Parts: sequence; structure tokens; C-alpha cells
Amino acid sequence: MSDTVHFSCGDLEDLMFAALVSSGTSEKNARSVARALLAAEIDGRKGHGFSRIPSYAGQAITGKVDGQADASIMKELPGAITIDVKKGFFYPAIDLAFDYFPDKARTNGIAAVAFHNSHHCGVLGHHVEKCAELGFIAIVMGNTPQAMAPWGGTKPIYGTQPLAFASPRKSELPLVMDMAMTQVARGNIMTAQQAGKSIPEGWATDAQGNPTTDPEVALSEGVLLPVGGAKGAALGLMVELLCAPLTGSALSTEASSFFTTEGEPPSVGQFLITINPDAFSGRDHFLERVETIMESITGQEGARLPGGRREALRKEAAENGLSVPAKLVEEVKSLAAQET
Amino acid sequence: MSDTVHFSCGDLEDLMFAALVSSGTSEKNARSVARALLAAEIDGRKGHGFSRIPSYAGQAITGKVDGQADASIMKELPGAITIDVKKGFFYPAIDLAFDYFPDKARTNGIAAVAFHNSHHCGVLGHHVEKCAELGFIAIVMGNTPQAMAPWGGTKPIYGTQPLAFASPRKSELPLVMDMAMTQVARGNIMTAQQAGKSIPEGWATDAQGNPTTDPEVALSEGVLLPVGGAKGAALGLMVELLCAPLTGSALSTEASSFFTTEGEPPSVGQFLITINPDAFSGRDHFLERVETIMESITGQEGARLPGGRREALRKEAAENGLSVPAKLVEEVKSLAAQET
Repeated sequence: MSDTVHFSCGDLEDLMFAALVSSGTSEKNARSVARALLAAEIDGRKGHGFSRIPSYAGQAITGKVDGQADASIMKELPGAITIDVKKGFFYPAIDLAFDYFPDKARTNGIAAVAFHNSHHCGVLGHHVEKCAELGFIAIVMGNTPQAMAPWGGTKPIYGTQPLAFASPRKSELPLVMDMAMTQVARGNIMTAQQAGKSIPEGWATDAQGNPTTDPEVALSEGVLLPVGGAKGAALGLMVELLCAPLTGSALSTEASSFFTTEGEPPSVGQFLITINPDAFSGRDHFLERVETIMESITGQEGARLPGGRREALRKEAAENGLSVPAKLVEEVKSLAAQET
Repeated sequence: MSDTVHFSCGDLEDLMFAALVSSGTSEKNARSVARALLAAEIDGRKGHGFSRIPSYAGQAITGKVDGQADASIMKELPGAITIDVKKGFFYPAIDLAFDYFPDKARTNGIAAVAFHNSHHCGVLGHHVEKCAELGFIAIVMGNTPQAMAPWGGTKPIYGTQPLAFASPRKSELPLVMDMAMTQVARGNIMTAQQAGKSIPEGWATDAQGNPTTDPEVALSEGVLLPVGGAKGAALGLMVELLCAPLTGSALSTEASSFFTTEGEPPSVGQFLITINPDAFSGRDHFLERVETIMESITGQEGARLPGGRREALRKEAAENGLSVPAKLVEEVKSLAAQET
């Protein structure tokens, strides 16, 4: 018996949808979540893809995430909106943002969206990529449960603090970069743990601030190290200020795990900035000059554009579907078969 | 004879003002530049302080910077302005921005300023600190002459790409962080060169991409390394897109040196984003929660807030003035004594 199962993209999305609905998520929200997880799975971001269904569905069952939440605008200015995610899933809330920010960014030149009392943000790069497909430059960031210490300290107070940026391009897929402010995302350490491997020095410390190469120690008591030392920690602080105090959401120190099904909702925040090139140098000039920069990168031996593998991965998935672990499929199928 | 000369802050500002005016800078622009360099000198950012006068004045004489330029608004939307710096100094142009963005950020929630055909941006942290003193969160970045290669490449196409962030605080000086996207700023390598010291591995490579510890090689033919590897390079690319294509300014690959007096104007760009906390969670909530984060940093042994030394440095300079190199004073005095 094979340890993976093959699905078409549509069938995998439908299976995820069914598991979420059977766990108490509204159909509208379940469709949004399933689409986002499918997009992550297609792009090879498996830690944010199909593998999240058991914890998402489990949280919908216990009420740690409100699957029925109907995100709504809680505050609006000409260039700014605050969306109350109501401790529901983030994906339907950012879908709602797309009904508002394009007009605001077109009229004002720049617009921002704050997400209040939100949940796991998934692949942030996908959200800004959609903004860029509409012609906007976009920056988004999110705070996450505590994982990283302030510079010089040993106790974690920031999350991994992901940040993503996207820019429209003339005729290619948008340029997308997507990074955590820690040396590595927590998923890399989990992968090492599952494989029984040690992690390189420089990724994490133990509770006393000593370097560790043991993934168990890093995950249970330890602290993730910032990328680039003091600078990564400073950027982590910037992400925290914009995503927690500014959105009225939980600090990283207050947020519960995105993985476990017990406890209070994480209630973290996200902050999105969208920029209209027409408000500044003009779209044509902007796109022309972006290509000049892209050529100066791709024209160098060994140099790579961030996010360069997407096109091939998406083509492959659209044509040939996706393989996912059989054990996980069984788990998700049994969630989908629950009495609702 | 002492190798330093002591000045009151006011006298040092006046000496810089005189040297700039004698070199063909308008009085309004010279006052703005002298104030900005004094602020850098006071905060111990000597590479952006008094030491810049010979190159600034020399560039005003040759026309590499237009000391008479009168920066003006070239494009305006409700939340966005583009300022034409007209190949003059940046400091008077950002002074002009303060006449516009506060109303825009108050009304719209967020506002951006693009600086077109600009010059050396100095200590970016000072500009966002002033925004934060007015109650705004601010992010600013600038592109600079080529110094850093794209990830995987060896030829420099990005500058050091400084980025600064500031946030208002309840009753303390604003929180300010200010960093280059290279492992170190060029000034650190110049300091090593002047002291005849080698530089640590990881700061720079030679023209072939091999690590170098020789500051001469690093500065003449070499390439600065990004902070945090691929992530620093990606953030450098983000800075480039926002500061050059979006502002209609020169790419880092096209920009001339900020130090030499010959050649075309650098014509780089800067991009400023300002955010009004009242548009989102509200100022009181925001400031309260920022303090909670600050306490979780300062309460940890060894942990430090970015920019923590400013208060003491400013008090010291206000009370006791500043000491600057005697040789530099002679040079600046002879510039000030020029026939205009």
C-alpha cells in the first residue's frame, strides 16, 4: 500500500472543505480556508497546507477558532480599515479586505488594513501576491505566538513574525518575498524533529539562552534566534507593534498555539499595506523599471529571484494533481465523515 | 596642540551652515542640512555628521548637488505625495514633507511620501523619530549606490538600503530602529580601513564573490554581504523597488557616490510611510500596549531597546557641547571663508 494518495486539486480542496464544514465551520468560511490551504500545498508550503486540517478542524470543534465567525468592518477611514476577525479564520477576513482596499488605494495612493483578533495567517506571500495581481505593491505582516527573544535577552516575547512583500510585474507572475524574522520558521525545526535529526547551531537556544542543536529542546523550552542578529530582532519588534498594539490584538506573549486544539483563541493580528504605483511615478514607469532590476538579477550566474519556483509548481499541480500522506488523508476523511 | 576642538552645539551648527552657504547652498537649505548633521553628530552617528561637510560642500560647488534647489510637490493624492527634490539635499525636502503628511495621515489613517531625484538620506532614524514625536508610526527607507549583490550573485546591484522605523511612546522618547540591509554599513569598513585593521569574515567579498577580510578590497572592488543571507538581500530588493521605480529615481546601479564631488548627481530616492494609531485601535490603547512590550524587553537581563543611548548623548551634548577633529575643523573653516 502506497503511503501517499493522489488527488486532483479540486478533489483535495473539496475534501478539506468537507472536513471543515463537518467540524462546525460555515460553508463560506470553509471554502475560503480550503482554497488557501490548497494554494499553500500547491506551492510546496506543506506546513501551511493540507497538514493544517486536523488542527484547524479540531479548533473549530473546541471553539478555539470560531468557524462560524462573520468577519466585518469595525472601523473605516478613507485610507484605512480595521476588520474584526472575531476569533475566526484569517482567510475569509482577508477575502473581505479585497472588497475595500483596492478602491481606497486607488483614490488615496496608499491604504492599510488591520486585522483584529485573528488566527494563523498561513502563507502571507499568497495574500500580497493577490494584491499585486490587482496592480498594487503590498506588504503584510503578522504576529504569532512567542518564539523569539528580544536582542540580548533569553525569554521569548516575539513570534516568528512573518513578513511578505509583493510587487506587480509587467507580464510575469508578481515578485513575491515571504520570510519569518527568525533564522528559520518553526516548521523547519519540526521537520528535523520528525526525521530524528539535529538542527544546526544558530537556529535556537535552550531556556537559559545556550545554543542547542536538539530540536526537542528548541521546540519545548527553547527560543528561536532572529535572522541577522539584532536587526532581525528589531524587525520582529516592528512587526509586533504593527500587528498587536495597532490592531488591538493579543501580543505574541499572550497568544495561544496555532496547533493545539485546547485553550483560548490565539487572537493575534495582521497588518496589510497596499500601494498604488499610479499615485507616485506611474504604473508604466514603475513596471518598466522593475523589469530592469529583475534583469540585473536573472542576468547574474547563480542569482535567483525570490519565489521563482511558483510557476512550475502550479503548472505541475494543475496538470497532475497532488500527492499527500495517506495517514493524513485517513484522518481528514474521518473528520469529514463526522456527524454534524 | 589638541587633535580635537570643542564646540557648543549652536556654534558647530553655525560653522557647518557657513561652509555650506559659502559653497553655494541657499540659506534655507544650509540651515536644514546643518541641523540634520548636528543631530547625527550629537547621537554619535559621526559618519552622517560633521564629517560630511567637505563632501557636501564640495558637491554643492561642482553642482553634483544643487544647493539652491527648492524642493516642491510634483504629485498629490489624498494619502500620497511625491516631492521633487530636484537633485538638491534631502533634508529640506523631508522638512517640506512635514507640511503635508500629518494632515493626510490624520484624515486617511495612512499617508506616504515619495522623494524623487534625491541625495544622501543621512540618519533615517531621525526623520521617523520626528514623525513619532507628532504621534505617527513611521517607516522610511532609501536606496543608495550599489554595494550588495542579489542572493546567489556576485555583482552589486543594491545599495546598503537603510530602513528605519519609529513608534510614539507614552512619555519616553519614541522607539527608533535604524538599520542597513547589509551586514554592516559602509562606514564600519571605512573605520577599519582608516585604523589599518582587517574586517571580520562575513562583511564583504571581493569582485569574484570570495570572502575578504581586507577593507581596501571590500571598498574598492568588493561587495557587501546582506544581513541574514537571503532574507537581507530580499529586503534590500524591497527597498530598491519602493525607493527607485516607485519614486522615479535612479536605481542603485545608476547612482553615483555620495562622497566624491565629481560626476552626475546620485538622484536616488526615499519612501516614507506614516500611520495614525487613531485610525486603528486608538492612540490610548496603542500607547498602553507599546509600554507592555517595552517592559517585557527592559525587564530581561541583558536585553536592550534599539536606540537606547540617545537620551544620554543628547543631554551630554546640550550641556557640554561636542568635540570634533581639529583637522576637519580647519577644512570646514577654510570652506566657510571662501569668497562666494
